Amino acid sequence: MSVGQQKIEEHRITSEPYYLPRGDELAIARMAYAHGLPLLLKGPTGCGKTRFMEYLAWELQRPLITVSCHDDLTTGDLVGRYLIRGGEAVWMDGPLALAVRNGAICYLDEIVEARKDTTVVIHPLADDRRELPVEKRGELLTAPPEFMLAVSYNPGYQSVLKDLKQSTRQRFVALEFDYPEAEFESEIVAREAGLEAATARNLVKVAAMTRGLKDSGLQEGASTRLLIHAGKLIKGGIDRRTACRVAVCAPLSDEPEMLAALEEIVSSVF
Amino acid sequence: MSVGQQKIEEHRITSEPYYLPRGDELAIARMAYAHGLPLLLKGPTGCGKTRFMEYLAWELQRPLITVSCHDDLTTGDLVGRYLIRGGEAVWMDGPLALAVRNGAICYLDEIVEARKDTTVVIHPLADDRRELPVEKRGELLTAPPEFMLAVSYNPGYQSVLKDLKQSTRQRFVALEFDYPEAEFESEIVAREAGLEAATARNLVKVAAMTRGLKDSGLQEGASTRLLIHAGKLIKGGIDRRTACRVAVCAPLSDEPEMLAALEEIVSSVF
Amino acid sequence: MSVGQQKIEEHRITSEPYYLPRGDELAIARMAYAHGLPLLLKGPTGCGKTRFMEYLAWELQRPLITVSCHDDLTTGDLVGRYLIRGGEAVWMDGPLALAVRNGAICYLDEIVEARKDTTVVIHPLADDRRELPVEKRGELLTAPPEFMLAVSYNPGYQSVLKDLKQSTRQRFVALEFDYPEAEFESEIVAREAGLEAATARNLVKVAAMTRGLKDSGLQEGASTRLLIHAGKLIKGGIDRRTACRVAVCAPLSDEPEMLAALEEIVSSVF
Amino acid sequence: MSVGQQKIEEHRITSEPYYLPRGDELAIARMAYAHGLPLLLKGPTGCGKTRFMEYLAWELQRPLITVSCHDDLTTGDLVGRYLIRGGEAVWMDGPLALAVRNGAICYLDEIVEARKDTTVVIHPLADDRRELPVEKRGELLTAPPEFMLAVSYNPGYQSVLKDLKQSTRQRFVALEFDYPEAEFESEIVAREAGLEAATARNLVKVAAMTRGLKDSGLQEGASTRLLIHAGKLIKGGIDRRTACRVAVCAPLSDEPEMLAALEEIVSSVF
Amino acid sequence: MSVGQQKIEEHRITSEPYYLPRGDELAIARMAYAHGLPLLLKGPTGCGKTRFMEYLAWELQRPLITVSCHDDLTTGDLVGRYLIRGGEAVWMDGPLALAVRNGAICYLDEIVEARKDTTVVIHPLADDRRELPVEKRGELLTAPPEFMLAVSYNPGYQSVLKDLKQSTRQRFVALEFDYPEAEFESEIVAREAGLEAATARNLVKVAAMTRGLKDSGLQEGASTRLLIHAGKLIKGGIDRRTACRVAVCAPLSDEPEMLAALEEIVSSVF
Amino acid sequence: MSVGQQKIEEHRITSEPYYLPRGDELAIARMAYAHGLPLLLKGPTGCGKTRFMEYLAWELQRPLITVSCHDDLTTGDLVGRYLIRGGEAVWMDGPLALAVRNGAICYLDEIVEARKDTTVVIHPLADDRRELPVEKRGELLTAPPEFMLAVSYNPGYQSVLKDLKQSTRQRFVALEFDYPEAEFESEIVAREAGLEAATARNLVKVAAMTRGLKDSGLQEGASTRLLIHAGKLIKGGIDRRTACRVAVCAPLSDEPEMLAALEEIVSSVF
Repeated sequence: MSVGQQKIEEHRITSEPYYLPRGDELAIARMAYAHGLPLLLKGPTGCGKTRFMEYLAWELQRPLITVSCHDDLTTGDLVGRYLIRGGEAVWMDGPLALAVRNGAICYLDEIVEARKDTTVVIHPLADDRRELPVEKRGELLTAPPEFMLAVSYNPGYQSVLKDLKQSTRQRFVALEFDYPEAEFESEIVAREAGLEAATARNLVKVAAMTRGLKDSGLQEGASTRLLIHAGKLIKGGIDRRTACRVAVCAPLSDEPEMLAALEEIVSSVF
Repeated sequence: MSVGQQKIEEHRITSEPYYLPRGDELAIARMAYAHGLPLLLKGPTGCGKTRFMEYLAWELQRPLITVSCHDDLTTGDLVGRYLIRGGEAVWMDGPLALAVRNGAICYLDEIVEARKDTTVVIHPLADDRRELPVEKRGELLTAPPEFMLAVSYNPGYQSVLKDLKQSTRQRFVALEFDYPEAEFESEIVAREAGLEAATARNLVKVAAMTRGLKDSGLQEGASTRLLIHAGKLIKGGIDRRTACRVAVCAPLSDEPEMLAALEEIVSSVF
Repeated sequence: MSVGQQKIEEHRITSEPYYLPRGDELAIARMAYAHGLPLLLKGPTGCGKTRFMEYLAWELQRPLITVSCHDDLTTGDLVGRYLIRGGEAVWMDGPLALAVRNGAICYLDEIVEARKDTTVVIHPLADDRRELPVEKRGELLTAPPEFMLAVSYNPGYQSVLKDLKQSTRQRFVALEFDYPEAEFESEIVAREAGLEAATARNLVKVAAMTRGLKDSGLQEGASTRLLIHAGKLIKGGIDRRTACRVAVCAPLSDEPEMLAALEEIVSSVF
Repeated sequence: MSVGQQKIEEHRITSEPYYLPRGDELAIARMAYAHGLPLLLKGPTGCGKTRFMEYLAWELQRPLITVSCHDDLTTGDLVGRYLIRGGEAVWMDGPLALAVRNGAICYLDEIVEARKDTTVVIHPLADDRRELPVEKRGELLTAPPEFMLAVSYNPGYQSVLKDLKQSTRQRFVALEFDYPEAEFESEIVAREAGLEAATARNLVKVAAMTRGLKDSGLQEGASTRLLIHAGKLIKGGIDRRTACRVAVCAPLSDEPEMLAALEEIVSSVF
Repeated sequence: MSVGQQKIEEHRITSEPYYLPRGDELAIARMAYAHGLPLLLKGPTGCGKTRFMEYLAWELQRPLITVSCHDDLTTGDLVGRYLIRGGEAVWMDGPLALAVRNGAICYLDEIVEARKDTTVVIHPLADDRRELPVEKRGELLTAPPEFMLAVSYNPGYQSVLKDLKQSTRQRFVALEFDYPEAEFESEIVAREAGLEAATARNLVKVAAMTRGLKDSGLQEGASTRLLIHAGKLIKGGIDRRTACRVAVCAPLSDEPEMLAALEEIVSSVF
Repeated sequence: MSVGQQKIEEHRITSEPYYLPRGDELAIARMAYAHGLPLLLKGPTGCGKTRFMEYLAWELQRPLITVSCHDDLTTGDLVGRYLIRGGEAVWMDGPLALAVRNGAICYLDEIVEARKDTTVVIHPLADDRRELPVEKRGELLTAPPEFMLAVSYNPGYQSVLKDLKQSTRQRFVALEFDYPEAEFESEIVAREAGLEAATARNLVKVAAMTRGLKDSGLQEGASTRLLIHAGKLIKGGIDRRTACRVAVCAPLSDEPEMLAALEEIVSSVF
């Protein structure tokens, strides 16, 4: 008996997530799903990759199991492991096996953060075999057509040490994400923070300027998420500059000079 | 049955902590709490970040669970693990799961000291999903509105190896802390050490001068905490210079030249 | 009793895999099999090594057990381990022992990714002893004549750290694989994607041009697999350039300049 | 039930240790104890730090639990762990929890040798919270007023890798130890080795000269402990030069030139 | 009860292995055996070290237990460990303890690949104590006169990191192996591959030329084993040049230039 | 009940070991024993340190427990650990605890090979406390007067990474060992190998010449042990030069030039 199997319903998305399509990404994803091809989502942090997956899962009516990858995520964490119950070893599916068994979508967020073994364990699942060898049980799971594998990463972070191998990359259909266009982003911020359009547009202006600092020493520009945070604080009555300072500038950097530049940007807009 | 759940009351703060507000930090924190946004506290050691969290927890009437992060803190330490009880595996919530279940405030002190996996495990909890996947149980905890996540770190320590990733940073509302202004700091030292105002002011003078040495080779200036220690020794009858030597100078450095400079500072004030 | 032994039938290949022979590789492999010599398959990712093994296994009517090697694959994962069942330690064969016991073909994919101990554990199996010492059971398995060992790796990835030792290499008969010739590759793409011949030929043209970029900074050219992906998207109605962008270009690189060069290649063909 | 709690009496010091005070260190330590402040002892090896702690524990009538820190000391070693007893997990206090529960003095010798997690686990115990979170039990121990924390290290060994963080250092009252003055040291050696005064004084002369070699390539000069060893051998009838060679010179260095220099020092005195 | 002890008969060599003596190596090995001295076999891969051990074991009528050493071989793997059987810990001898108890020959192949602890655990067994401390059982096994320890390594691989310590080396009688002389090698290849003499001699000519490339960038020349592989393929009907390409050239190198040079050698002979 | 305690008699030395004293080392060791001081034996491999300890143990009539130190020796290996027996955790003394409980001599051979924690665990045992904290049992063992601690190392191997800390060194009485003088060494070789005096003297001549090569690239000269090996082979009928080649030259080096030089030395003597 597999304990983990009972929980799949928790992962079903019951109401339509708010997602503004940007191009043909939904059409391509649907076609990849139809042909059993796995998806690779590239793009900066907070630009909407996770929301896209939620929307796709809702549209395809499949449960969505998300795993935030990290250095210590083992194959056992993904595939499953035996636990002791009443002196017996009882198998417990990991998120990947759970998704395969239930024809769910398994989304490995920031895959390059995972150890190499995690990356390799998805190989037979990510080519036309669509199989997951559960080596500890001597079991070979074959994915049903409803199962979909998706992974994401941020190319801006890539280093020699943290890179996807070609033998991994060349198994995926790749979608490139970026921050939404200004108009769309303003609409998103206004809606999510409950803010009037003008202030949302100004927040997006601030964001655009921070993104322009990327080559001047800022690791990454402000994400849409940070704008929504600032919007919520403003909506709650916090002064606009203060809201931008604590929700946009301070999260982006610790360098005094960079912080001064960021706050100047804010002052120029608000 | 979860053993850990029974202990939440130990973490409730029953009497008002002494905290002198410095600006709008309480208003911002309350607003972040109201909107379910997590807090990032930046600032040097011993400047009052922990005390601020205690005060906030007291004001919001939520239990405060503090975790001092370090290199060996595993995801299991934070989320929970199975223990063997009478031949059965019994689940035991870690501090993070305990806080989520009970709508408490979970404060991860010096988050950059933690391994990367610890940092990543809070991602789904630190965005609008507000979920904690308890992978070992195949359980997905959804945080109640009362739950708050807060983390702290000292930007003065940052190095390439120990840095928060942008995908982590860009989930938080960030509050910047520094040593209190001289007048406030004197008041705090006087109150906490039971010292008369003049001596407290002189201790603060000493501290200010040590902080000025930061660019001359001293890793960090004297914290308010060290002043309180010196104050207590003085109050107890130890000679002022001796008290400053053992409670302020010697804790700051081992370099003979730096120690001489620090003791000269003390001699110039007392 | 060995739990793993019951599953060997899952690994039997029941219908003829589609494989276009390229030279004398099948004759050599049959002869190596007849003399109990192990096979080493060299070649770039996605060029058909795995398909070749499937075809060989089908022809020889042996089950095929494939293991994707990685850094964390232990000897125990390959050979087997004890699991607790009802308070008893029950032995569970790993894929290598399972293959030896059942006279199957064991295929270690990307062997150089494995830790050195994995490589060494196959030594007595890869010379004329054809033995697998199962040290944890104090058992010495002798391979039946039907057992075959095969390993693969991509010489393009070799580095000083990840290299096969001479004492390992000098146990194998080595087959060198490369991308199929244009005509063959077009036939494969057309067949696998259900595409008309002309478009398949154009996809192969694109691939050939990407392979020519290998010395200009591209880590590896487009594999046959990527062409099949693009073909399936085109067949499903996605615009040809878009299909090439998401299924060929974006999986190959994250570098903006390289991506531009790749899309130019696509534009020159479609 | 905690197995470890029963053993606290073993750590009580029942007879007055021999300790010659050097300055105001006892007064400061008493005051730190009275205010619940932790102690940091700095100084070279074998100069009397451990003896000072024994004396202080005897004077304060508290049990003394000493832990020699090292690279592999885990938080579990300090705080405690579960052990299996009759199929049940039984908690066993580590030395730190044992000391907190019993109001003992816990002395972490050579704290910088410990892993960073050990250092961090004492943070909430070393500030005004005086709490020890026993995370594995979900328990929060509050130290009684009788509990004292003390740590030691040798600043002469400090390196970038092995250094106390400012956030750790700035929690302690720091006492600086050095070798005793010649007269005191002679008295100690004479008493501990049962030696007549003149020979003890000569041994101290030898030690002083070895300490002067510290900048000439000797890592550290001879400790008082080595003099006592030599004294005991002399008292037992071993030739003075031989006693100095085996108990003072040979333990200090392996370099032939340095050994020759050390033996020359001995010859110049005896 | 020791599970492992029952299997010793599996390691007995029942028919005379084919071995052509090259000099006085057998006389020396017999004398070393008679005096209880351990053997160290040096030489390149595939030159007959393992076959020599098999022959020696057959001649001395002792079981031969071979262990391929590697980075992850622990002392427990060699000496033994406790396993859980019916809730009880049952001891299971490792190959070294098994050999000591049964007066067998234990042959540690490629000893320098082992971790340092493996090397050290044989020290008391490799000097006149001839003892194996089984620390986990608190047992001290004394080897009977029939026990023999032998280790091998390839001096061509030595590096600073992977070297035998002098304290290990200076316990062994060392035999130096090299490829057999041409005449002998031809005889071996002819016999093992069932090949006529002329072709065998030509294969040996090829090998000799590859061995001459060792200083020109080839890590190691072709071993006798590779010649036998090629001979078997030729005997089975594969074209001579093809057989040499897949069984001799391709296993030796991945470098295109080196492969071209190797195939030129083949063309010059066949 | 401690399983390990029953085995102490195995470690008793029942017949007088052959040991030729070289100076005052026995007198000093007796005196160190009388005063409870630990011993540090320095010297090259195979020069008689272990034999000296055996002789001392025989003379003092104490059991001798020898531990060969290595990188993976844990504190648990030395002090002890819990094992599961019939579902119960049963304590099993490690060699150090066994020696302390039984007043035996514990000899840690090549202590610098051990991890730092092993070195630190002996600190309280190696000063005047003479205590062994068994932290896993919460027990504090006090050594009886009969207990002696001895450690050894080879100063010729010291490196920055593998060095004894001053805080460890300065706890020992240090005895320096070297190869015996020619006359003594000849006597030892003759006796141990059963060889006539002239040949033994010639072997010692060979050894002396190899020791002279130490500054010319040979890591270490031939130990007395190697001479005894060669002597035994000669006594058994092996040609003298051959015996020296396999028992003296080949164990010392793998470098062709060095081996040639060593064999020339042999030819000049025999």
